[in-house]
Amino acid sequence: MDFKVNSKELENLLSKIYPAIPTKTPMSILEYFYFELSEGVLNVYGTDLEISLKASISVSAEGNFKGLIQAKRLYELIRSFRETTVYFQIEYDHTLYLATDKGKYKFVYLDTDDYPEIPSFPSANSEEEIKEVIINGDELKYSLEKTSFAISKEEIRPAMMGMLFEFEPEGLRFVATDGHRLINLLDKNVKHNFEEQYVVPERAISVLTKLLDEKDVKIYLNKTHVSFKLSDIELISRLIGYKYPEYKNVIPLENEFTLKVNREELNEAIRRMLLFSVSETRKIKFSLMKNEMEISAEDIDTGASANESMECEFDGEPMDIGLNAAFLSDVLNHLAPEEEVIFKINSPTKAIILLPTKGKENFDLLMLVMPVRLNA
Amino acid sequence: MDFKVNSKELENLLSKIYPAIPTKTPMSILEYFYFELSEGVLNVYGTDLEISLKASISVSAEGNFKGLIQAKRLYELIRSFRETTVYFQIEYDHTLYLATDKGKYKFVYLDTDDYPEIPSFPSANSEEEIKEVIINGDELKYSLEKTSFAISKEEIRPAMMGMLFEFEPEGLRFVATDGHRLINLLDKNVKHNFEEQYVVPERAISVLTKLLDEKDVKIYLNKTHVSFKLSDIELISRLIGYKYPEYKNVIPLENEFTLKVNREELNEAIRRMLLFSVSETRKIKFSLMKNEMEISAEDIDTGASANESMECEFDGEPMDIGLNAAFLSDVLNHLAPEEEVIFKINSPTKAIILLPTKGKENFDLLMLVMPVRLNA
Repeated sequence: MDFKVNSKELENLLSKIYPAIPTKTPMSILEYFYFELSEGVLNVYGTDLEISLKASISVSAEGNFKGLIQAKRLYELIRSFRETTVYFQIEYDHTLYLATDKGKYKFVYLDTDDYPEIPSFPSANSEEEIKEVIINGDELKYSLEKTSFAISKEEIRPAMMGMLFEFEPEGLRFVATDGHRLINLLDKNVKHNFEEQYVVPERAISVLTKLLDEKDVKIYLNKTHVSFKLSDIELISRLIGYKYPEYKNVIPLENEFTLKVNREELNEAIRRMLLFSVSETRKIKFSLMKNEMEISAEDIDTGASANESMECEFDGEPMDIGLNAAFLSDVLNHLAPEEEVIFKINSPTKAIILLPTKGKENFDLLMLVMPVRLNA
Repeated sequence: MDFKVNSKELENLLSKIYPAIPTKTPMSILEYFYFELSEGVLNVYGTDLEISLKASISVSAEGNFKGLIQAKRLYELIRSFRETTVYFQIEYDHTLYLATDKGKYKFVYLDTDDYPEIPSFPSANSEEEIKEVIINGDELKYSLEKTSFAISKEEIRPAMMGMLFEFEPEGLRFVATDGHRLINLLDKNVKHNFEEQYVVPERAISVLTKLLDEKDVKIYLNKTHVSFKLSDIELISRLIGYKYPEYKNVIPLENEFTLKVNREELNEAIRRMLLFSVSETRKIKFSLMKNEMEISAEDIDTGASANESMECEFDGEPMDIGLNAAFLSDVLNHLAPEEEVIFKINSPTKAIILLPTKGKENFDLLMLVMPVRLNA
């Protein structure tokens, strides 16, 4: 059977699926695109067993086809073409020819029998309970970008290697934490009629963030998987099966003191202190006074040290607090473009809350960092 | 003693020296800048024992100073400042304070006694014979960029890990080879009155290339070192002490057949064939005919293969030649912006010469690639 397709349209399609193809895998079948041609629609799938991507385009075709084609070789080849028509000619002996006006390229395709099954949403099994939510793509992107940097990379706590999606009466809450900092963002624009927690793996979050645009996204959820249906592509991810930690216990309710500072000015000072901190702990010290704060660091190994002063507004008694400069700088970066930020502080040993002064309408954003001991 | 300096001027100075500071070294003293302040001039040096960089600026100073300061920490600190005045305050107990309007930074400096000696040009030792040449910076940059990519990375042949600078009656010749390809470029604009060969290490070439601009460069050479004096910085490199191979024997004098093709079109085809070649050999085949050539590749492991045809002008009998696609593509890239290139060919087993069709005035450029056996 034969079909033909514009090279740039095919490139665009393959470029969307390619992020699901694993670069190193003991299962070599995952290094292939799944091609399924039916009724003039070419569906292409890719999966690394954790996430799957599906997209399709219309092509000029005679007949149907199912087969696996080497992903890297095909994608690189199609990408290398200037805009042209690509003719696919599929033989029954597992040979597939691509032809352009310049040349001819032979691939050996595999049968699809051994390819892992990819879940479908909404499911063919009508017994299964599936939740459905619609969310704006730009808003979802905003939430993921503000939150995902704090997802843990440590395999020892598997639930924290994902982002919590918590559907609650007020909206959809996103939570990420690695034990040193915690991001908690409530999107009040999301309408739904159920209460449930889901943990989405980091890889799904990072691939999804790159795919999102201003269009609406349909989210389908069952007990084991989530599907994000965008206008031109579907991302399906398995959910992390472990219960997310009771993060609410970590967020202090009564942090009575308020510190208000210029975000970028503080961040620049912290990055300089990082150069003088001990590399294992990244410890720096905040010395807070009413209208001025001092930030300092000391590298005991080399005898180097540094301190800077800057203006602030602080309504508590003078206090010294130890902080991890790298974690704090990360948090301040993700509070951009806020000009000023607010620290809610209780004592040098309690979790510290950072809040935007302006924020985004209908979004409640709270970032939290744990202090470090000064005399350790 | 004290001195002060504009932060951006100091940043500019340090950024030039920093490339000589090794990132990983068992000799921790090399991770320091050598600061030498004398008569209101601040000289800064850095070295990795192979190359050394020296530059200076004027500062407002009282007194003299010599000391070693941690390079990474100082450079990152100075870089992080917005434009401001930096005050240096040097104490006798090896403590050095930097102060700005925002903060104060303490370094521990080391004595310079253990720092390796950096050669000076022209030498204080008047006995020593030193060659001196002047070359335009842009022209030198052109020569290095055309040639350096072919320098060998294999330690087994140490002379080929550098670029040959051959002063000969017609001008200055640059040669680089890794045994698979050879670049030979003669700059006829260079005037000198001696004949000599020098081998300059790859690292010196790559650092120098980034420093060069349109201004003239003074080159000093003795038996062991070369100095490139630019308007605002000096690069000194040790020379490679091994004799450069007799490269002239490799260049065939009588390659009678000429192949003329479009460079970019050929290069695109070769990059596609690379996708279908065996990754160990990168072997592709040229099948040459009078007005048409076919380029093909075959990956025997997966059964994939490809071929393309393109127009050409060839004045020999039809012939098949095996080539390494990766090496050939590299060579074609470095023949940019030539629209067409010429291959001078003798037989499928002899070295193949590539020439630009236009070239640059007063520069003779020749690139050479070795064929690979087709039936291996």
